[in-house]
Amino acid sequence: MHILIIGAAGMVGRKLTERLVADGGLGGQPVDRLTLADVVEPASPAGFTGAVSTRIADLSTPGTAEGLIADRPDVIFHLAAIVSGEAELDFDKGYRINLDGTRYLFDAVRLESVKAPYKPRLVFTSSIAVFGAPFPATIPDEFFTTPLTSYGTQKAIGELLLSDYTRRGFFDGVGIRLPTICIRPGKPNKAASGFFSNILREPLVGLEAVLPVAETVRHWFASPRAAVGFLLHAATIDGASIGPRRNLSMPGLSATVGQEIEALRRVAGDRAVALIRREPDPAIVRIVDGWAPDFEPKRAISLGFQADASFDAIIKAHIDDELGGKIAV
Amino acid sequence: MHILIIGAAGMVGRKLTERLVADGGLGGQPVDRLTLADVVEPASPAGFTGAVSTRIADLSTPGTAEGLIADRPDVIFHLAAIVSGEAELDFDKGYRINLDGTRYLFDAVRLESVKAPYKPRLVFTSSIAVFGAPFPATIPDEFFTTPLTSYGTQKAIGELLLSDYTRRGFFDGVGIRLPTICIRPGKPNKAASGFFSNILREPLVGLEAVLPVAETVRHWFASPRAAVGFLLHAATIDGASIGPRRNLSMPGLSATVGQEIEALRRVAGDRAVALIRREPDPAIVRIVDGWAPDFEPKRAISLGFQADASFDAIIKAHIDDELGGKIAV
Repeated sequence: MHILIIGAAGMVGRKLTERLVADGGLGGQPVDRLTLADVVEPASPAGFTGAVSTRIADLSTPGTAEGLIADRPDVIFHLAAIVSGEAELDFDKGYRINLDGTRYLFDAVRLESVKAPYKPRLVFTSSIAVFGAPFPATIPDEFFTTPLTSYGTQKAIGELLLSDYTRRGFFDGVGIRLPTICIRPGKPNKAASGFFSNILREPLVGLEAVLPVAETVRHWFASPRAAVGFLLHAATIDGASIGPRRNLSMPGLSATVGQEIEALRRVAGDRAVALIRREPDPAIVRIVDGWAPDFEPKRAISLGFQADASFDAIIKAHIDDELGGKIAV
Repeated sequence: MHILIIGAAGMVGRKLTERLVADGGLGGQPVDRLTLADVVEPASPAGFTGAVSTRIADLSTPGTAEGLIADRPDVIFHLAAIVSGEAELDFDKGYRINLDGTRYLFDAVRLESVKAPYKPRLVFTSSIAVFGAPFPATIPDEFFTTPLTSYGTQKAIGELLLSDYTRRGFFDGVGIRLPTICIRPGKPNKAASGFFSNILREPLVGLEAVLPVAETVRHWFASPRAAVGFLLHAATIDGASIGPRRNLSMPGLSATVGQEIEALRRVAGDRAVALIRREPDPAIVRIVDGWAPDFEPKRAISLGFQADASFDAIIKAHIDDELGGKIAV
């Protein structure tokens, strides 16, 4: 089986690659070939016995997508995107990469499928940013997509194209709306959502973290491990069981900042919690106010997608996967 | 006031033009200039005292949109589209005109607005084809858009772009989802929805009409007169009152085929009804099964959009507007 990952150098792409290499297969079939593409060269995974090619590829350049799919991969993961903040700051870049790039990819597969029968599974990572406030207390599967960012708009358009191209038989698409990833590994960054991870990740290694909002703020989360699980399940699920509505809100954990902090206390103790510094930031408060607090993702659950068990489990998985099992506080 | 109508040679475009000329103004302001564009040359309206220019323009050709908006019209009606059946048969053409063409127009206005302050009202005609079965008994305003045609997909994408460009301040957009137009004037055509109009229009002039579905089939309608009323209201409504959700399901009349026929009997008598010939067509039955039966368009109603009063009124308006007030049966 040949798997193509576009956006392989990103955090989720790297973890997906690691997992595929560790598993050695997907859905019971051995993976003998991996093509890893991104705008910077993806690392070649250690310990993979099959063929790997790493590609520097900008999907928004016409012709690039055709090159990536010319060898007809069986499964395509399309994870590449300009993130929310950048797509908002740079209108042209966001539309060029998130909309045009996605359409180039879909059209390349379409034209390949017209040449001779070809129907790969195409997994597209969408986002809960396709939804815009005001929200009901829990967002049902049939709630409309009225994004309040250009990023959310571009993802919602990708979803519509995915469904139409799948309906037409050009590929077999599954769109998954990822919750906010928590705990995101790495350093604190300027993303408005960064604090949800920072207040857990930094104290676990003995560093201070800033909390800019009230503890009552509620949001929707999945761990990197759960996100990789969604991707693998989306790649192997029976397409016919999904039906024509190809885009699914993934199951997450709904939690308040206060509940995150109490989980940290249970897993890492009071000394860790003491490293969280309250520093209200009205700009971040305003942004986060427009984010979805809770979902009722019945369809995804009935199709077998699995959420994290608890915030304690999210923190423990982070300690296992990123800190070699040890808390440093 | 300068008004640009793109798609001016179509049925709705012609009726909108006639109405603007008859009214002489829009929202209390005189209309002194009309630009009428379409892929075939629109007729120059009789009796208009202002300046008219008619333009042959294919919106899907790069550069065309820039030319159309170079003189900065105050109101832009974007009615141009490849219809549902053709967009389904010709994938490339549908996407080129309904998606690329719309995006070229929106981008042309965006780039003009970046040069120097410019923020026209832009009215975009969307369609209830953005919705796909299965439906609840009545479709609420917050129901999701999961189209089952490429046309519906293209309209749903246009809606998303309209909201994002409006949020960004590039123009002041309003998207209106038109019900199925009934009674559509002209000859019977091959559109799957044609019979809804045929069974009323043809008997009114003494001709037979074919009914391919059961009388229990329920659908959502607006007269051409009501559609023009929606467009005028969308052009003049206070943008701030709409908020960020710029796309509205228009109020229509939900009726069964049986109710249409009873209205015909009340207005034109048994002899008219006797001209309807039952000839079941399984292909049309299957298509129509996927169409929306009823809506609850609370937002549009609260914003002042007005539906037809009854099917009797729809038929009487057709007799007035198309038949000089006389029934020929």
